[in-house]
Amino acid sequence: MRIDGRDHDEMRPVKITKNYLKSPEGSVLIEVGDTRVICTAHVEEKVPMFLKDTAQGWLTAEYSMLPGAGNTRINREVSRGKVSGRTAEIQRFIGRSLRSVVDRSCFPRMTITVDCDVIQADGGTRTASLTGAYVAVEMALQKMLREKKIKRNPCTEMIAAVSVGILKGSALLDLCYKEDFNIDVDMNVVMTASGSFVEIQGTAEGNSYTKEELDKMLELSRKGIMELIAIQEECLR
Amino acid sequence: MRIDGRDHDEMRPVKITKNYLKSPEGSVLIEVGDTRVICTAHVEEKVPMFLKDTAQGWLTAEYSMLPGAGNTRINREVSRGKVSGRTAEIQRFIGRSLRSVVDRSCFPRMTITVDCDVIQADGGTRTASLTGAYVAVEMALQKMLREKKIKRNPCTEMIAAVSVGILKGSALLDLCYKEDFNIDVDMNVVMTASGSFVEIQGTAEGNSYTKEELDKMLELSRKGIMELIAIQEECLR
Amino acid sequence: MRIDGRDHDEMRPVKITKNYLKSPEGSVLIEVGDTRVICTAHVEEKVPMFLKDTAQGWLTAEYSMLPGAGNTRINREVSRGKVSGRTAEIQRFIGRSLRSVVDRSCFPRMTITVDCDVIQADGGTRTASLTGAYVAVEMALQKMLREKKIKRNPCTEMIAAVSVGILKGSALLDLCYKEDFNIDVDMNVVMTASGSFVEIQGTAEGNSYTKEELDKMLELSRKGIMELIAIQEECLR
Amino acid sequence: MRIDGRDHDEMRPVKITKNYLKSPEGSVLIEVGDTRVICTAHVEEKVPMFLKDTAQGWLTAEYSMLPGAGNTRINREVSRGKVSGRTAEIQRFIGRSLRSVVDRSCFPRMTITVDCDVIQADGGTRTASLTGAYVAVEMALQKMLREKKIKRNPCTEMIAAVSVGILKGSALLDLCYKEDFNIDVDMNVVMTASGSFVEIQGTAEGNSYTKEELDKMLELSRKGIMELIAIQEECLR
Amino acid sequence: MRIDGRDHDEMRPVKITKNYLKSPEGSVLIEVGDTRVICTAHVEEKVPMFLKDTAQGWLTAEYSMLPGAGNTRINREVSRGKVSGRTAEIQRFIGRSLRSVVDRSCFPRMTITVDCDVIQADGGTRTASLTGAYVAVEMALQKMLREKKIKRNPCTEMIAAVSVGILKGSALLDLCYKEDFNIDVDMNVVMTASGSFVEIQGTAEGNSYTKEELDKMLELSRKGIMELIAIQEECLR
Amino acid sequence: MRIDGRDHDEMRPVKITKNYLKSPEGSVLIEVGDTRVICTAHVEEKVPMFLKDTAQGWLTAEYSMLPGAGNTRINREVSRGKVSGRTAEIQRFIGRSLRSVVDRSCFPRMTITVDCDVIQADGGTRTASLTGAYVAVEMALQKMLREKKIKRNPCTEMIAAVSVGILKGSALLDLCYKEDFNIDVDMNVVMTASGSFVEIQGTAEGNSYTKEELDKMLELSRKGIMELIAIQEECLR
Repeated sequence: MRIDGRDHDEMRPVKITKNYLKSPEGSVLIEVGDTRVICTAHVEEKVPMFLKDTAQGWLTAEYSMLPGAGNTRINREVSRGKVSGRTAEIQRFIGRSLRSVVDRSCFPRMTITVDCDVIQADGGTRTASLTGAYVAVEMALQKMLREKKIKRNPCTEMIAAVSVGILKGSALLDLCYKEDFNIDVDMNVVMTASGSFVEIQGTAEGNSYTKEELDKMLELSRKGIMELIAIQEECLR
Repeated sequence: MRIDGRDHDEMRPVKITKNYLKSPEGSVLIEVGDTRVICTAHVEEKVPMFLKDTAQGWLTAEYSMLPGAGNTRINREVSRGKVSGRTAEIQRFIGRSLRSVVDRSCFPRMTITVDCDVIQADGGTRTASLTGAYVAVEMALQKMLREKKIKRNPCTEMIAAVSVGILKGSALLDLCYKEDFNIDVDMNVVMTASGSFVEIQGTAEGNSYTKEELDKMLELSRKGIMELIAIQEECLR
Repeated sequence: MRIDGRDHDEMRPVKITKNYLKSPEGSVLIEVGDTRVICTAHVEEKVPMFLKDTAQGWLTAEYSMLPGAGNTRINREVSRGKVSGRTAEIQRFIGRSLRSVVDRSCFPRMTITVDCDVIQADGGTRTASLTGAYVAVEMALQKMLREKKIKRNPCTEMIAAVSVGILKGSALLDLCYKEDFNIDVDMNVVMTASGSFVEIQGTAEGNSYTKEELDKMLELSRKGIMELIAIQEECLR
Repeated sequence: MRIDGRDHDEMRPVKITKNYLKSPEGSVLIEVGDTRVICTAHVEEKVPMFLKDTAQGWLTAEYSMLPGAGNTRINREVSRGKVSGRTAEIQRFIGRSLRSVVDRSCFPRMTITVDCDVIQADGGTRTASLTGAYVAVEMALQKMLREKKIKRNPCTEMIAAVSVGILKGSALLDLCYKEDFNIDVDMNVVMTASGSFVEIQGTAEGNSYTKEELDKMLELSRKGIMELIAIQEECLR
Repeated sequence: MRIDGRDHDEMRPVKITKNYLKSPEGSVLIEVGDTRVICTAHVEEKVPMFLKDTAQGWLTAEYSMLPGAGNTRINREVSRGKVSGRTAEIQRFIGRSLRSVVDRSCFPRMTITVDCDVIQADGGTRTASLTGAYVAVEMALQKMLREKKIKRNPCTEMIAAVSVGILKGSALLDLCYKEDFNIDVDMNVVMTASGSFVEIQGTAEGNSYTKEELDKMLELSRKGIMELIAIQEECLR
Repeated sequence: MRIDGRDHDEMRPVKITKNYLKSPEGSVLIEVGDTRVICTAHVEEKVPMFLKDTAQGWLTAEYSMLPGAGNTRINREVSRGKVSGRTAEIQRFIGRSLRSVVDRSCFPRMTITVDCDVIQADGGTRTASLTGAYVAVEMALQKMLREKKIKRNPCTEMIAAVSVGILKGSALLDLCYKEDFNIDVDMNVVMTASGSFVEIQGTAEGNSYTKEELDKMLELSRKGIMELIAIQEECLR
């Protein structure tokens, strides 16, 4: 029995609210249990230097936690003048995963910037961010299609992400903060609707894990991601 | 007739949602028309260097806009490594005004940090931030009273803030973004429940204003602030 | 009787020295009592990004205090890597006020940069800076007229600024540092030669003020500013 | 047949030179093909703030590439004022993995700082860094044992790391730069001498991979890592 | 005949004004031709970390140019977030030279901070800064003696500095900006009253110089420095 | 007798290894005793802003010490966000000296960037860096000649650099770290193959030196530099 009464393979309640903000091309509020993230997608007519004069657009992601999101006040990163290593890692994780399912040759000279702002954090903020960000990006792409800015939808597959872990020998799906805090192995999995992996990040802080444990975690993640993709589809319909 | 159909002395709809977040000692979501701000108050056992070994606590404020809050994407300030002049000015405005109605000798060796994060901006974000922040601070102070961390409530008076302006000769209360954009004179007024001024910031970008116009604006601001204070009281009851 | 023997409505001695430096298009040393500020105006053929391809020039201001200007050594802002909130606020105050009396369509594609460097600070540095800066800008504009870089003088009105305050119930004009340190209410007023307000910044750090007190302060500020404008006129003749 | 003539499951030549520098407690030069990295371990009597007054020491890692290490000149990160997201991610990867096999309660109040400086980069710099860093840390720990600064060796298991990938359907071990540049799936695997996983980072930039492909890559990584651990053992003997 | 009519071994007019500012322990305005620098010395009860718990005080120097000091506007270094290489080099030059003639064991646990702020630059700002700084430091030391904060004057010798150069084969003393701009060899010399060298910095930007040319320059510098030391003595009397 | 058994006019063993790295246009490892520096020269098709639209190319230098180079761990400068004053001074020293013997009109619109990365520091890192950098630059220029990117070799003379000093009255050539640490006078001399000076930097930290001592040091430096130039020639042949 888990700390919040869930089964080992049970997700927390997930809710995605579309059009959470007026201006961005795509925006959602995603709630996974008490974790709440605002995800937006903006489209701008520019590309970074390294894509100048190529036939590729760009997609990048930024991530931040509000000062009130955690258990104690989180200092703003601007007060240190730069993002932390953790933030940099998460931003790269989100951007890289989304780029895997988006054909950037469909939107040359354009950049889609995804922003994930965590209003409240209760574990799994990076996977919730990616899951919500996918919907925001898809909304932005559909808007570009309607406005004839692109000819076809660059999105090749739906993706979602979930955290899994090993706690005292048991594999658990969708860790909340208290579980994450004590976990032996912590893994973030990004998977497409067709069941292929896009990214696996499995970390054993002070520990290691066997191939069997890995396989158990990957199986759980598949279950969770399929549920998340169903919710994304529902929301986008 | 104003752009959104209001009378010249009419506020937009105002709503303050208490306990918007789980962890901070005080937290609200304030909505003034389409402007939405999360205001939190955290209490920490520390004071800045210049108050070390004094009998005074500290109260300070930070302000930020989310990337999706504006009409176009707003770059994160961390990407430039420092807050803008505008942000610095607003942070000082909020902190200074709140310190005017809080007796800091009631909480020596403690700092109350107010955070105002603008989720959506449609004009008046600094005055909405202050109005919401007052409620968050009062919530935090009441919690400290309940937990016997302080002996009496340091708050001497309620305060709220509103923007007023002159547009083509007419004085207007509570400017929305489109009004603010074209305004001749723009003034932010902070007032206590007893009707005294705490701060007046009146700027005529490319213009100037007479004593009569000033008096008209101050009269309107009094009306708006008394309405806001009634809503704050209702929320805190 | 005030700390330095002045009447409540009496300015400190004011002196403006023209052509204090060789190179800048306009430069003055302004002395208000012991407060001494070097104000310069440089004209450059460039505009910030947001004015590219418009018919408007730009005017901006920077402000700094020398390490030896205060009672104890003031750390250079470069050593923290960024300007303080106070500096940012003052820079915006000076730039905004000057832009109110300058028609920037007269100098498209050009930027006037005002620099105010406080050599010695004894209260009222931001208002002395603005008062001196106006003269430096006017000098620069006259030079541009002589050199046929602009067709007509973009300056629509003279402006000057003064601080006023309430100390133990009395309104005082032109606060020196020791008065400012203990003041109940502190207000900076920018006014044109025709007596209109350009900016009012009234702050009650730990206090509030009534409409009557506000009116008294504004009346005093009018007296001081008219005296300052007479000195500016004398200097520019 | 691979670009450099190797078999799909063949490592490049690996060489670890001990005591490459005079001063650090541990130092090696690791060469994996043309990739060359200086790895050092320094021990200092200090811990970060969050470990003050605990019974735990700290182990952290830094990573950098010399300007001449790549195909074109690499700008120094100090010239931008901060490390890139990529560097932050790699530093966290190395530190986290090493902490997994080191019992930090054996060296309370001490910090081991690992530095990995890439002299020449030809793919796999982060895995070569970790593999070399393990040896440098072990050397430092043995020196601490000899000097009686610690009572027992905190190292619980040997670890090493290798990159694997999928290129046009084939799984490849130990990617060189030209392979890495065109790879479909890129995975970094950290494993202990007993064959447990410490970290898996599998990224499909613009692609995804099946469970079968994952399993193939993990099998290759096991082969490579066992070879690396043999070389580490040889070097430490 | 030089550009400003001087002989090859003739200094520009030099003037040192004592007590230029009210607050710093020592302050002067030094004028060397059109070069004008405010030099101050502040004494604070602190030492940098590396002198904690030693019997040595510290002396350090900072240098800056005001935006209006040059021929065109000089950007403030705070706007780039850090001092330039040139500024860093000059700061080290001034601090190092002053430390050579000050016995820091006379003021343990104290730091003397020298600030040199160039109001107007016409060549030789670093040597004028050092020459003025010496006087400001001596003033501060005498004040400390009068206030019994130190027992004896830590100053072992007077020092001053001057620039010399080679222009088309001729050696010149005290270069003004226009000379410095075209110079073949540029040398800054710091010398004590007894004629020993404290620092020589001779740079041949795009050139080189013989031993004979070096000797000629050193001879000229001796003449100039002896004149400067006479002026310093006069000022300090 | 010196600390390491050398005569007062004896250099440590010097070795320059050409083509130390694969990619840079020029690269060497220079070893002077235990001091080891990687020096590279990269050629890029760009010039800094101030050389835009001129007929001059640019040559600039950067310098850094690896964390393991010193006696205790050296913090990376990126962690403070900027280079130290010492680093800035050394970078300027190297760039300025090299520019003195390179005719930059031979490579308009190109920049040669020299990087000196100190692997191990045992005194004289800046002079070893310059001596090695000259060889790397010459290698890059010869490559440009072979590839017909330039028409003639821009190098006008060979240069090298050495440190000399005065210890207890004796002049010493090529100071190692332990000597440098206790030295009375420390001088870095850059000289051409024809025996002209390019740069002299003589610092008497807490001391001063006579003309006779200066002459003795310059004579020693001439001996050392001629030996270094012979080694450079050998290496470049």
